[in-house]
Amino acid sequence: MDLTLGELAASLGGELSDPTVSERRILAIRSLASAGENDVSFFRGDPRYLAQARETRAAAIVCDARIEGATRPLVLVEDAGLAVSFLLAAVRDLDNPPPPPGIHPKAHVDESAEIGPGVSIGPCAVIEAQAKVGARSRISAGAFVGRGTVLGEDCHLHPGAVVLHHCTLGARVILWSGAVIGRDGFGFLQREGRHLRIPQVGGVVLGDDVEVGSWSSVDRGAVDPTVVGEGVKIDSHCHVAHNCKVGEHSLLIGYARMGGSATLGKNVILAQEAAIGERRTAGDGAVLASGARALYKDVGAGEMVLGFHARPFTH
Amino acid sequence: MDLTLGELAASLGGELSDPTVSERRILAIRSLASAGENDVSFFRGDPRYLAQARETRAAAIVCDARIEGATRPLVLVEDAGLAVSFLLAAVRDLDNPPPPPGIHPKAHVDESAEIGPGVSIGPCAVIEAQAKVGARSRISAGAFVGRGTVLGEDCHLHPGAVVLHHCTLGARVILWSGAVIGRDGFGFLQREGRHLRIPQVGGVVLGDDVEVGSWSSVDRGAVDPTVVGEGVKIDSHCHVAHNCKVGEHSLLIGYARMGGSATLGKNVILAQEAAIGERRTAGDGAVLASGARALYKDVGAGEMVLGFHARPFTH
Amino acid sequence: MDLTLGELAASLGGELSDPTVSERRILAIRSLASAGENDVSFFRGDPRYLAQARETRAAAIVCDARIEGATRPLVLVEDAGLAVSFLLAAVRDLDNPPPPPGIHPKAHVDESAEIGPGVSIGPCAVIEAQAKVGARSRISAGAFVGRGTVLGEDCHLHPGAVVLHHCTLGARVILWSGAVIGRDGFGFLQREGRHLRIPQVGGVVLGDDVEVGSWSSVDRGAVDPTVVGEGVKIDSHCHVAHNCKVGEHSLLIGYARMGGSATLGKNVILAQEAAIGERRTAGDGAVLASGARALYKDVGAGEMVLGFHARPFTH
Repeated sequence: MDLTLGELAASLGGELSDPTVSERRILAIRSLASAGENDVSFFRGDPRYLAQARETRAAAIVCDARIEGATRPLVLVEDAGLAVSFLLAAVRDLDNPPPPPGIHPKAHVDESAEIGPGVSIGPCAVIEAQAKVGARSRISAGAFVGRGTVLGEDCHLHPGAVVLHHCTLGARVILWSGAVIGRDGFGFLQREGRHLRIPQVGGVVLGDDVEVGSWSSVDRGAVDPTVVGEGVKIDSHCHVAHNCKVGEHSLLIGYARMGGSATLGKNVILAQEAAIGERRTAGDGAVLASGARALYKDVGAGEMVLGFHARPFTH
Repeated sequence: MDLTLGELAASLGGELSDPTVSERRILAIRSLASAGENDVSFFRGDPRYLAQARETRAAAIVCDARIEGATRPLVLVEDAGLAVSFLLAAVRDLDNPPPPPGIHPKAHVDESAEIGPGVSIGPCAVIEAQAKVGARSRISAGAFVGRGTVLGEDCHLHPGAVVLHHCTLGARVILWSGAVIGRDGFGFLQREGRHLRIPQVGGVVLGDDVEVGSWSSVDRGAVDPTVVGEGVKIDSHCHVAHNCKVGEHSLLIGYARMGGSATLGKNVILAQEAAIGERRTAGDGAVLASGARALYKDVGAGEMVLGFHARPFTH
Repeated sequence: MDLTLGELAASLGGELSDPTVSERRILAIRSLASAGENDVSFFRGDPRYLAQARETRAAAIVCDARIEGATRPLVLVEDAGLAVSFLLAAVRDLDNPPPPPGIHPKAHVDESAEIGPGVSIGPCAVIEAQAKVGARSRISAGAFVGRGTVLGEDCHLHPGAVVLHHCTLGARVILWSGAVIGRDGFGFLQREGRHLRIPQVGGVVLGDDVEVGSWSSVDRGAVDPTVVGEGVKIDSHCHVAHNCKVGEHSLLIGYARMGGSATLGKNVILAQEAAIGERRTAGDGAVLASGARALYKDVGAGEMVLGFHARPFTH
């Protein structure tokens, strides 16, 4: 990153509060506390950071409202959150540029796989028979796409992410290293004290813009698919068991888990290590607070629950 | 899948309740709720699904007893669970056929490794020196078998599964993507405020028919091996620490964990996120309910415990 | 392992209590309970093992004080813990010798990467552009080092460990299979019911002698790096979120987790599945007992807390 404050303000569609500093050189984006004179920082209105915004040594602060008591130049934009995300994406792509399209000679792509235009496939990645990879998707080193699996456009599998056979991913799906999609659920028959594997043949369907963190799984349905709706974000160490349905734009935060055939409505939040039990449902907008366990009853739409047996939350 | 109902009934050793439909064409197996006229479905006697069994549009229902009020043809078999598992295994093998025997040119197999007849080794899999892989085992893409490790016959390592050096696996062991067998346990010496690694040199022994899920480990013993008995099934996100003994046919369900040197008898169940502490034991047939923590005392044979300090369960 | 008791005593700088047995042949190190006549065993003073020390059939016992009632020969050393660790490291290196230096032909190393002297890079490992790998480091099969990442000397990445781009590791860092360093933290903007990724561009800094277990992450900072101090040991299934600071020689035990921007002082212990919340701090020497949750208040230096809301522990 190396541009002037004026260029930076222009790229964000913002206005520089002090036009005389527009030639200052910006080399990095840093937090308010750590920024120096060649860094830009940002303030998104959180009062816990107000003192830092007043004391920062940053060359300028990206924000969407005047900051009372600030002495550094401001870059005023319409939405500081969006502007900062735009800036961070640019920095990320400079730091770690997307690889050029093409299949690395140390990758293995089955000859029956269909690879869209602009796709990059890294070293030691493996794409099995009849798989389809949508345009511009990025399959990083060591990632795996199983037989017959279909990826939409602009997907990104980080190094070592795994999608087993016959799963369907929408556009812009991101899987982090260690994520596994399409594992058989934990289904066994008990016969004479032994546990006999029940093979699982339903697939997995992930909607557009789904993100799945490291060591999180969406298990393959028993016979019908497990379905995760558009825009759902799953953090690391989470577990979506077989036959679950996850409504659009829901969030599963670290170590959150869903038992088999559980259903979440839209915009549900399972906070850190929250759990919803087998066949349980949580309605639209429900929140299971950190550590809540809804094992023995359902959670209504808009309800917020916490605690081990998920008593209703009362203010 | 494409066969007639008559063929399907014959393959299951079952009887079709209405012989006039034996020529109907079956293309898939689906749940009662989602099956259509070219699908077969199944009913295993669970009363929660009785209404669905009566209303399904499936071409036929596999079951092992008459279903009161059902209007669709039945395929009556001796054991519906076993019949459905047999059918699902067939579907799975059609969907995702086992690869032909052989070593993929992009795999690496050390020349001192012994590879049995019928073994398939996928692209980017690695087999180190002196390892032995039993007949017909399937080592998928990117899986790893360390130096001197011995795998029995018909094992299946899914993509990215890892078995480190000098471990011994029985026959038909299944490891899912992300499973790690033979990691050093978390053993350190404290000296002057520092933690010094105690190397672990005991191996791991997994009995026949053991299954280990994604991101589950069986850690290498300190000097003697960690031992998991025949038929044990370990779900994902579980942890079996160094020097544990797990008795035959026990179950560890999601996020269940065993502290170092803990011992489970036969047919023990550690339900979801149940924990048994260091050096603790649970006798044959014990059940630690979901979230139970047996950290401070042992659990007797046949006992069922729940709660944080694992109080005895009373009805 | 094949040496005489006299040679073994000499290699540990110890003294054999019965010089007449110095020619006995030692083939392995085993626990007191399982050792036989060609095995050496050890006793580190733990009274729970005193009966076993008296009854063992081992050829000799390594210890640092006379054992009352023991009948087997002793190898008396200054520090039995250190002596046993030294012995175990020797056994490990015999069992699983470090590979010779060099880059395996099935690895991929970008031509702009700098690889130090004595480094070994295993099959299907990947080193990206501008990465630096310090002298004598060992990058095992299938491990990944991202663009611009710097590893110190004598690091060891076990099979399948992942370090994403622009991270910095000190000397002697050990990453176990499945560890992921440098993942983007779970940061999203909420806009009109949707979650928009906030790219994370701060790196990760791991100090000398850090160890990270399987399926544990140290997430990339949002703009400033996430920092883990010298000598910190992180067990498996743990989570260090973005912008955390972990003080020197702290321990995180299985399933322990730190929320975003949490800070640990030096020599802190997060016991099994302990959690410290976002922005919370724990002072030097603090202990969060097994399952403690410090979500709503900080933990003082030297304090020991337990329970769900981390009440102070009183004896």
